[in-house]
Amino acid sequence: MALAGRGDRVEGFHAVTAAVAAGRVLELLVQRSKTGRADYVELMELARRGGAKVQVVEDVSSEAATSAPQGVVASARPLRTLSLEALLARVTPPALMVVDHLEDAHNLGAIARSVEAAGLAGLVVPGRRGVPLGPAAFKAAAGALERIGVTVVSSIAAVISELKRHQVWSVGLARDGATSLFGLELLTEPVAIVAGGEGKGLSELVRKRVDVLAAIPMAGGESLNASVAAALAAFEVARVRRHSFL
Amino acid sequence: MALAGRGDRVEGFHAVTAAVAAGRVLELLVQRSKTGRADYVELMELARRGGAKVQVVEDVSSEAATSAPQGVVASARPLRTLSLEALLARVTPPALMVVDHLEDAHNLGAIARSVEAAGLAGLVVPGRRGVPLGPAAFKAAAGALERIGVTVVSSIAAVISELKRHQVWSVGLARDGATSLFGLELLTEPVAIVAGGEGKGLSELVRKRVDVLAAIPMAGGESLNASVAAALAAFEVARVRRHSFL
Repeated sequence: MALAGRGDRVEGFHAVTAAVAAGRVLELLVQRSKTGRADYVELMELARRGGAKVQVVEDVSSEAATSAPQGVVASARPLRTLSLEALLARVTPPALMVVDHLEDAHNLGAIARSVEAAGLAGLVVPGRRGVPLGPAAFKAAAGALERIGVTVVSSIAAVISELKRHQVWSVGLARDGATSLFGLELLTEPVAIVAGGEGKGLSELVRKRVDVLAAIPMAGGESLNASVAAALAAFEVARVRRHSFL
Repeated sequence: MALAGRGDRVEGFHAVTAAVAAGRVLELLVQRSKTGRADYVELMELARRGGAKVQVVEDVSSEAATSAPQGVVASARPLRTLSLEALLARVTPPALMVVDHLEDAHNLGAIARSVEAAGLAGLVVPGRRGVPLGPAAFKAAAGALERIGVTVVSSIAAVISELKRHQVWSVGLARDGATSLFGLELLTEPVAIVAGGEGKGLSELVRKRVDVLAAIPMAGGESLNASVAAALAAFEVARVRRHSFL
């Protein structure tokens, strides 16, 4: 399922390089001041070989949606997203991250990187509510969104029910969760981590629907950054499963 | 040591509440639309009791440096920072986070929250290079910068030498570090985690000067968000030390 507007504009060196490697880039604008650098020359060559139209311009910033495009702005085919079934099949036993109500593109991008780094299958994101899969998210993901699986759904609450039908446990992250996330044995089974937004965390409906509400233990303070909480959870899955990369 | 410009402007509900609790707030602007909410009423009362001048205005956004001040903008005495010795004395054995070349205020704020949550003593930040302790960092820290220890230094490389003299090990986070950060026994000893910036990581001089270059193991991908890497390291200290909150 490819939906217009999702990843059709990519900016930043790592994000563009990954989009080129994914064969999605149709047109690439490169700032002249970068064309002397070996890494940019290689990127341009890869883009051309992949069939992209490559254009050198004086300044890409007028074309850029992000504040620091690092001299490259790409127009691309939308990101190829996966069905939930295909996402589940990417890792055995299934392990994925669901994000609910996320508002900050930097957090979404950071979570994509953590999902990849921890070896999870990918991300389930809401199609309408929450931050879009736009240029800022792709830039913050530094290429990770091209390499993990991404599934777009219309309702996070509904996808949790769907996960149940696939016999996948859902573990919601909540400051007041009764269970500690650390060492949670359930993470060895087919599992989806459900991470809430920056302000209010999980929605009431999602809180009710997940199988477990788990808290990240804290020595002090009130809360963690949303992408930090998601990262600790992603790596905890790897840890409890004793993944060999650790 | 209190330096003008560090934390003298605080915005966002949690950040302002913590600054009021720290007794730093001199003047508080509150947006009229918020004054019906019990939590804002309580904040205003606490601020008044602490001797702050509280003013209700139609719209704080014209006074705000951040894009979402959540209806509160405070002028405050600068954050009270600590000497390195005082910072080291806050946790036994000493455990702290040093940030080098960080560019993004959101990452700095997120790291402060992780430092508090993981029970580390606090943060060492450079006085000039890198992102300042301004309104955006305070807002992203959601109050944590008021509660952890903060030490401002003129050179990160120099502070690592100073840490050596205090018999504190320094562990630099680096993608190509020869040692895994996970399970690193050295973390049970007096230790400083040194986290690099978003782009290039640690500076060459800092890389050379730290006692150990440690990598966060990754199943895939190229790198983690800087605040995510710092958070994984902060919680690893707690884990290796078997802290009771875990």
